[in-house]
Amino acid sequence: LSELAAQILDGDRRALARGITLVESTRDDHQAEADDLLTEVMARTGGATRVGISGAPGVGKSTLIEALGLHLIDTSHRVAVLAVDPSSPRGGGSILGDKTRMGELTRRAEAFVRPSPTAGTLGGVARRTREAMLLCEASGFDVVLIETVGVGQSEVAVEAMVDCFLLLVAPGGGDELQGIKRGIMELADLVVVNKSDGDLEAIAGTTAADYANALHLVRPKTTAWEPRVVRCSALEARGIDDVWHGVEAHHDALTGAGELERRRANQSREWMWSELSASMLDRLRHDPAASATAERLEAEVAAGKLPAPVAAEQVLRAFTDPGDRA
Amino acid sequence: LSELAAQILDGDRRALARGITLVESTRDDHQAEADDLLTEVMARTGGATRVGISGAPGVGKSTLIEALGLHLIDTSHRVAVLAVDPSSPRGGGSILGDKTRMGELTRRAEAFVRPSPTAGTLGGVARRTREAMLLCEASGFDVVLIETVGVGQSEVAVEAMVDCFLLLVAPGGGDELQGIKRGIMELADLVVVNKSDGDLEAIAGTTAADYANALHLVRPKTTAWEPRVVRCSALEARGIDDVWHGVEAHHDALTGAGELERRRANQSREWMWSELSASMLDRLRHDPAASATAERLEAEVAAGKLPAPVAAEQVLRAFTDPGDRA
Repeated sequence: LSELAAQILDGDRRALARGITLVESTRDDHQAEADDLLTEVMARTGGATRVGISGAPGVGKSTLIEALGLHLIDTSHRVAVLAVDPSSPRGGGSILGDKTRMGELTRRAEAFVRPSPTAGTLGGVARRTREAMLLCEASGFDVVLIETVGVGQSEVAVEAMVDCFLLLVAPGGGDELQGIKRGIMELADLVVVNKSDGDLEAIAGTTAADYANALHLVRPKTTAWEPRVVRCSALEARGIDDVWHGVEAHHDALTGAGELERRRANQSREWMWSELSASMLDRLRHDPAASATAERLEAEVAAGKLPAPVAAEQVLRAFTDPGDRA
Repeated sequence: LSELAAQILDGDRRALARGITLVESTRDDHQAEADDLLTEVMARTGGATRVGISGAPGVGKSTLIEALGLHLIDTSHRVAVLAVDPSSPRGGGSILGDKTRMGELTRRAEAFVRPSPTAGTLGGVARRTREAMLLCEASGFDVVLIETVGVGQSEVAVEAMVDCFLLLVAPGGGDELQGIKRGIMELADLVVVNKSDGDLEAIAGTTAADYANALHLVRPKTTAWEPRVVRCSALEARGIDDVWHGVEAHHDALTGAGELERRRANQSREWMWSELSASMLDRLRHDPAASATAERLEAEVAAGKLPAPVAAEQVLRAFTDPGDRA
């Protein structure tokens, strides 16, 4: 076992941070080291409840994560917070970049808050977040919260790596639009109506009922669990236990049905095939003969002169049958 | 030029139907013939306005397509109707399977209505629909309507092959839920509120205003076009010209900005890369050494014993470096 792996397994926070920096690196030699590191700690992963948290800007995602994180620490959990935000380098909706947003949680020894990796495609960011999640598990965190900025495909990516997907909404008129914009109702295992406080409390009741109705129209992800709606006020730290009870109930229902194990196995399998697909394309792009063919044919395809599948077949031949290159 | 290609270019409907059957076949030799056929007719494709039509069950998709198709025929267009419905083999929401649903349109010489291809993954169904669309264009149809059953990813697939994506909704309370369920607001170039007749006419006005507001909150797909809302009654054949004017206005705006050409070029490029990716995986699965490695490692990945990217790398090595197989 390498020293870094041993330190991570030992719960060393600085080692964990270094490990995550390693998996986030795009350098080839770092990538190889990261692969070794992950392989070393793999047997000690899988122990956390993995929760995705999504919602439109302004619904109070970081306030909820702070409140939920502190609640979990109070009940003897250790919480890691990660983020998937492919838009951050473009200055879109940077999340977790400003640690002050979760000031108290960040200062607690039982919590580990990691800003979103900078730059990269959604696929790259998602891969690094998955790997960071595994390292957090190896380091002994038993809850991993993965925040996502609500821009469509990143929710799908996060849902594919967590056990429980939580959709956070605010009370009132704009809510159905938040949902429409993202279309993530069918990904949600739990809908949390936040800001159920003050003037908004009554409206929150209506909003919760609306979402409960909406959930009935959505095809359930599994027969083992019917998505439900919970209300809370992250600001006043009320109902946070209900949110967590919802996550736990979901976790128990899935575990009892053998569904959690199946879901994770499927997620891992799909991850392998998508990595394989990405790696193959990457290798093809670095193959001089294939990439030259691809560039030439891509232009013909873009101009509508050649059917895309025919071009794909020719590029593939240039890549896999070097004999044909002559 | 092969005989079949010549007949299709000549507008022979039975030849077109045979050509589509060929591209829908999964037999390897048929696939090779289909590739040749497409290559032969490719120069004569691209001439149609390509319109995707989506909406929840019950909003009146086939009634609208019938009304729109007949309106287009009356104004000297030739209309082909295709469908993307990966769920049909599983008895989900089979569309266009029952031709009687568009009885009058089906009987018209100026129209060509093709049921959804049976069976297959979304990727496969989408590919065959794209190819059928190209054959319809080669055969002289200047409007191609592609219907999709509203189940999430198929809308994304259809949006990736059309010029204009039309979201059909019904008036009244359930509409925001239709939108939420599918999350396709941000794909829509045009929202059509159908059933704007009888008792529903007043409600249709409110619904149209709601969608107009919602569209303002969605990031536009292009600066060349601001998505708009149109009302119609497909049943009473009222407002159908407004729907088509919307499609034309969209087409003109995109063409004027050079955006249509760019969009189609991008769609074709992305199609090539996704085909390439699918073909590579397919070839890998048929490679004895690589597929044996994949099967073995997939089990380890599913059991959480091996990180997915590490497994992917090993499978890739077994595939591309035959020397390592020993």
